Amino acid sequence: MAASEESLRKALAEKQSAVEAHGNAVRALKAAKASKPEIDAAIEALNSLKLEKSSIEKQLQAAVSGSDGDGALSREAFRQAAVNTLERRLFYIPSFKIYRGVAGLYDYGPPGCAVKSNVLAFWRQHFVLEENMLEVDCPCVTPEVVLKASGHVDKFTDLMVKDEKTGTCYRADHLLKDFCNEKLQKDLTISAEKAAELKHVLATLDDLSAEELGAKIKEYGITAPDTKNPLSDPYPFNLMFQTSIGPSGLSPGYMRPETAQGIFVNFKDLYYYNGNKLPFAAAQIGQAFRNEISPRQGLLRVREFTLAEIEHFVDPEDKSHPKYSEVVDLEFLMFPRGEQMSGQSAKKIRLGDAVSKGTVNNETLGYFIGRVYLFLTRLGIDKDRLRFRQHLANEMAHYAADCWDAEIECSYGWIECVGIADRSAYDLRAHSDKSGVPLVAAEKFSEPREVEKLVIAPVKKELGLAFKGSQKNVVEALEAMNEKEALEMKAALESKGEVEFYVCTLGKNVPIKKNMVSISKEKKKEHQRVFTPSVIEPSFGIGRIIYCLFEHSFYTRPSKAGDEQLNVFRFPPLVAPIKCTVFPLVQNQQYEDVAKVISKSLTTAGISHKIDITGTSIGKRYARTDELGVPFAITVDSTKDVTIRERDSKLQVRVSVEEAALVVKSVTDGLRTWEDVWEKYPHHTSGSADD
Amino acid sequence: MAASEESLRKALAEKQSAVEAHGNAVRALKAAKASKPEIDAAIEALNSLKLEKSSIEKQLQAAVSGSDGDGALSREAFRQAAVNTLERRLFYIPSFKIYRGVAGLYDYGPPGCAVKSNVLAFWRQHFVLEENMLEVDCPCVTPEVVLKASGHVDKFTDLMVKDEKTGTCYRADHLLKDFCNEKLQKDLTISAEKAAELKHVLATLDDLSAEELGAKIKEYGITAPDTKNPLSDPYPFNLMFQTSIGPSGLSPGYMRPETAQGIFVNFKDLYYYNGNKLPFAAAQIGQAFRNEISPRQGLLRVREFTLAEIEHFVDPEDKSHPKYSEVVDLEFLMFPRGEQMSGQSAKKIRLGDAVSKGTVNNETLGYFIGRVYLFLTRLGIDKDRLRFRQHLANEMAHYAADCWDAEIECSYGWIECVGIADRSAYDLRAHSDKSGVPLVAAEKFSEPREVEKLVIAPVKKELGLAFKGSQKNVVEALEAMNEKEALEMKAALESKGEVEFYVCTLGKNVPIKKNMVSISKEKKKEHQRVFTPSVIEPSFGIGRIIYCLFEHSFYTRPSKAGDEQLNVFRFPPLVAPIKCTVFPLVQNQQYEDVAKVISKSLTTAGISHKIDITGTSIGKRYARTDELGVPFAITVDSTKDVTIRERDSKLQVRVSVEEAALVVKSVTDGLRTWEDVWEKYPHHTSGSADD
Repeated sequence: MAASEESLRKALAEKQSAVEAHGNAVRALKAAKASKPEIDAAIEALNSLKLEKSSIEKQLQAAVSGSDGDGALSREAFRQAAVNTLERRLFYIPSFKIYRGVAGLYDYGPPGCAVKSNVLAFWRQHFVLEENMLEVDCPCVTPEVVLKASGHVDKFTDLMVKDEKTGTCYRADHLLKDFCNEKLQKDLTISAEKAAELKHVLATLDDLSAEELGAKIKEYGITAPDTKNPLSDPYPFNLMFQTSIGPSGLSPGYMRPETAQGIFVNFKDLYYYNGNKLPFAAAQIGQAFRNEISPRQGLLRVREFTLAEIEHFVDPEDKSHPKYSEVVDLEFLMFPRGEQMSGQSAKKIRLGDAVSKGTVNNETLGYFIGRVYLFLTRLGIDKDRLRFRQHLANEMAHYAADCWDAEIECSYGWIECVGIADRSAYDLRAHSDKSGVPLVAAEKFSEPREVEKLVIAPVKKELGLAFKGSQKNVVEALEAMNEKEALEMKAALESKGEVEFYVCTLGKNVPIKKNMVSISKEKKKEHQRVFTPSVIEPSFGIGRIIYCLFEHSFYTRPSKAGDEQLNVFRFPPLVAPIKCTVFPLVQNQQYEDVAKVISKSLTTAGISHKIDITGTSIGKRYARTDELGVPFAITVDSTKDVTIRERDSKLQVRVSVEEAALVVKSVTDGLRTWEDVWEKYPHHTSGSADD
Repeated sequence: MAASEESLRKALAEKQSAVEAHGNAVRALKAAKASKPEIDAAIEALNSLKLEKSSIEKQLQAAVSGSDGDGALSREAFRQAAVNTLERRLFYIPSFKIYRGVAGLYDYGPPGCAVKSNVLAFWRQHFVLEENMLEVDCPCVTPEVVLKASGHVDKFTDLMVKDEKTGTCYRADHLLKDFCNEKLQKDLTISAEKAAELKHVLATLDDLSAEELGAKIKEYGITAPDTKNPLSDPYPFNLMFQTSIGPSGLSPGYMRPETAQGIFVNFKDLYYYNGNKLPFAAAQIGQAFRNEISPRQGLLRVREFTLAEIEHFVDPEDKSHPKYSEVVDLEFLMFPRGEQMSGQSAKKIRLGDAVSKGTVNNETLGYFIGRVYLFLTRLGIDKDRLRFRQHLANEMAHYAADCWDAEIECSYGWIECVGIADRSAYDLRAHSDKSGVPLVAAEKFSEPREVEKLVIAPVKKELGLAFKGSQKNVVEALEAMNEKEALEMKAALESKGEVEFYVCTLGKNVPIKKNMVSISKEKKKEHQRVFTPSVIEPSFGIGRIIYCLFEHSFYTRPSKAGDEQLNVFRFPPLVAPIKCTVFPLVQNQQYEDVAKVISKSLTTAGISHKIDITGTSIGKRYARTDELGVPFAITVDSTKDVTIRERDSKLQVRVSVEEAALVVKSVTDGLRTWEDVWEKYPHHTSGSADD
């Protein structure tokens, strides 16, 4: 694709020159009052060149928008239809709408809130309960010292530029990205070289420093999108919401940008709670906050969101997982680093192979990738639009051992929804250093092990005589030598009796004599190995998962009369906001009483449901309930038996009033499938429904 | 009690004078070198007076601490034991402990977090699901305009004083309260009048203005508790955590102090979602924030907490409730306004009587009081330490129709845990006014109704001629007249032809003639009645409920050997953090395998549990699990049958390996009781357990 685009840009430039040259020729003929046939022939040739140019333009247009030409349009239309339904049925609502809202803040309305709590309940079941994780619940308000240690105070920033006249703020990289994309897709006159340059900028966007970003913005003449005013130089803006704890104004705090830190600072207590044993995992569900510079993409980039995070603590020398065998045979789309670098696409790989070949760094990381795959697909995420993409070297923090993102494809492209990272010992070390509390684990040996240890013993008396007030600096420098340095000094002292030794706190060399320090290797018995555990962190952006789930579940189908498109969410019962609706077929007291009886049994069975006793036609009522993704509808059309309809197949069975609630419960609880029900109960054949 | 205290103070003062007088007499005798028998007799009389004084002191001491003398001590000891267990077993943890914590912020550790999520799940079941409430989920970050409308920006304050030298901040009312209590309880020499004054201060503490509080602090010479430095005058401190939304610094925001506002601003959409029908209730569970000046009382007064709030919207002309009959016969401790004013205590009242006598303002309010009672007692709150206290007139906001707090007694006294208020139309009106979006409901009439309406029609031409530039002010003032004013003007104009009329925007009277305004009553047909709904708000402080539940569930019992006290939480299965533990009786592979099989069936059944395969004695393992409030333990002591032990009775039954998980599930799900199980299965009689 890229090659053909390049050659098309060249061909277009050539054709453009030819058109210009020929145009000049025609004008020259006219000026020279050439004969009409001569001029006509020249014009005909010019027109044919113009046609050729236009054809190349069309090809180039198609090439730059990729397979996207129509795709982008239909994706846009699909999103519009889905988002309209979601907002109209209050799955979500822009927050504080009556006050014209705040960018990047959304409410979940009743069905959205129910989906969210179903997703979180399943998350708890699938991860916390099945893996015996230690769930904790920490506050959002966090004192500065904690986020200083974690690095967020210094590094949790985006580069921002300001409209120099209005003060409106923009993300610098977004403006540059938009400029390059726009140029590449809409300006067909740019040279192949220029196109290559813009593509390089896009590819390296995340690596650009403030200076480099600023230089590019100047070079390309990018201005403020709304006003065309000039822009300031880019400068970092910290994305945490800042506040002040207590009334003194002296205790700065932040709204946490992630829930993980609450777990790290509790490591010591949690390790004790777990009987001082590794591995174990802690988990937390809660709100997190990012004060985005200019939020966009609806629910995907917001200023407040729910995270569900797991911190699995493990011995860095043993990253096996006892339940690894349960996921080893899963096969799904993976997108390793190598494939990304060589321009290939994601491909189906057996998880066990990815781990055994070392593509995935270790078993525990692999285990969680597998569990995340199962979690997402059971929610209803389409497995063909889900891939696990490995971070490239430049994306990963220097301390990370390996990192994979579960990316879900939606109308906005591939969206990072879950990050699964092996963060090694970074976080625990950072908090150990800052707090002075050692966050370590110990492996007790079944019997003591003999180890050889280097012992450096400065002879303080001699050093004091020789260096007086500097004695302390020399002692500390001697003790700080590593094994290699100490053994070299030992050898030198033995052979020469004296060595020059650089003491950095004094900034100079001092002479060390043989009698000033004893260096030896001693054998010691050790009863345990003390180490900082590694942490493997699966971190779930619940709002992003839910938005992608909305898109993957949404479809339209024609009404029975064929005159309109009806909206449906194909949520599995697990996540459906309401499991069942109950309709009396016609407005009559007897049917309403039966509906109430069924409603009561549904409540007792713990099945969320809704009664609709409006006089609307049954078809309209089905359409309403399909639009909320309700999997089952019970229509009361007699006082003895009722009709149960399944949402996607629209198939209907006849069940007694007494059994109705239990039939629905058994399917929503996953004890049997709709197919089992369809096989067991008589089918409803009358044409009453869906019209 | 108060009377006896008063007379004791008087008696003590008299006795004190007598002691002093007699002391002087003794000294005078000695000075006058009176005879030894004479002096001895006088000393004996003095000693007997002292003894009498001391006896009165003791009585007074007992009286001022109420029944509290020993009670306070034992409550303190009880709290210590409970809190030690809670902190040691990580039910909760002071947040950011390794950084020495932040006052008023706590984490829930694993068992606390599990209790919390069980309480919230039951809340959803009991309120949202059973009542078909519309649950929403709104952000914590809230723009200023919303909280300006709700009144929080201006009025959500506490009065604060500062240590004038160190700058340390204190709540002014807390210092005054502590001073009065301390004086009353520890200083027996104060006069009865002084005691009465201090008690009056305590009783009216909430009504004191900043100036009055400051004056009392000065009058009593109260200083900073830690340094004894002088204190500043009291001034209001806003309790909201402030922040800034977006990068401009121009959009102030706050962390919400309650979740309710998110519901009010969505009223219009929610009403539409409910088919434009009243009544309906919306609900929200989420974090709320109060930047307390100086938090104390552990989990009871914190800076971040989980609220669960319901806003039930109802026609102010019809506050009946369709399910009221389900709670009408409940009988529990109520503490109406009258009983509080007349110094009586709370008493058992049938809810239906309280409503029918008008003690409780209306049926819907009564219904929610009943539902809250059921909710709390099913969680395990002791019904004898739960009362519903009505707000006194001075406690209630001016707009509130009635307000009751569910108060739970714990070692800190009676604690407000749920507020149930009829807030009338206040909140919706405030947001209508501020946003300009009418938040109203409409009752459609089945047929149009004829209503008489007052019509005031200023004659602009005549007014313009008479008042020129002031015409607009006069027109507006005329149109703003209420019905009474307008009818009076009409009568006056008819009789006198001219009246003086005060125009407030002009600040003066103007003469109005008959030809300048027409006032009439017209008949109009109306198709609906438009009104602002009333809202009834039950608001649950989840953390406070949980803390009280911890205290109500905690008890100790002697170990079998009798050498130590063991801690137990008697949580009902509904809230127990873990439902079941599984122990192999001895460390052996066969038993461990059986334990794993049972564990797997428990997971499948959705029963949270824990395996303990440590070699510790079975008695110790039971003690550990009792301390977490785990209701059942399955001990694997054969490969065929296992022993199930109930926590509180310590009774044990024998059940087959296959049945074990299902027996536990049936009891924790409430399908049968432990008594049913005890009756059905063979009893375990061997002495292996609990030693």
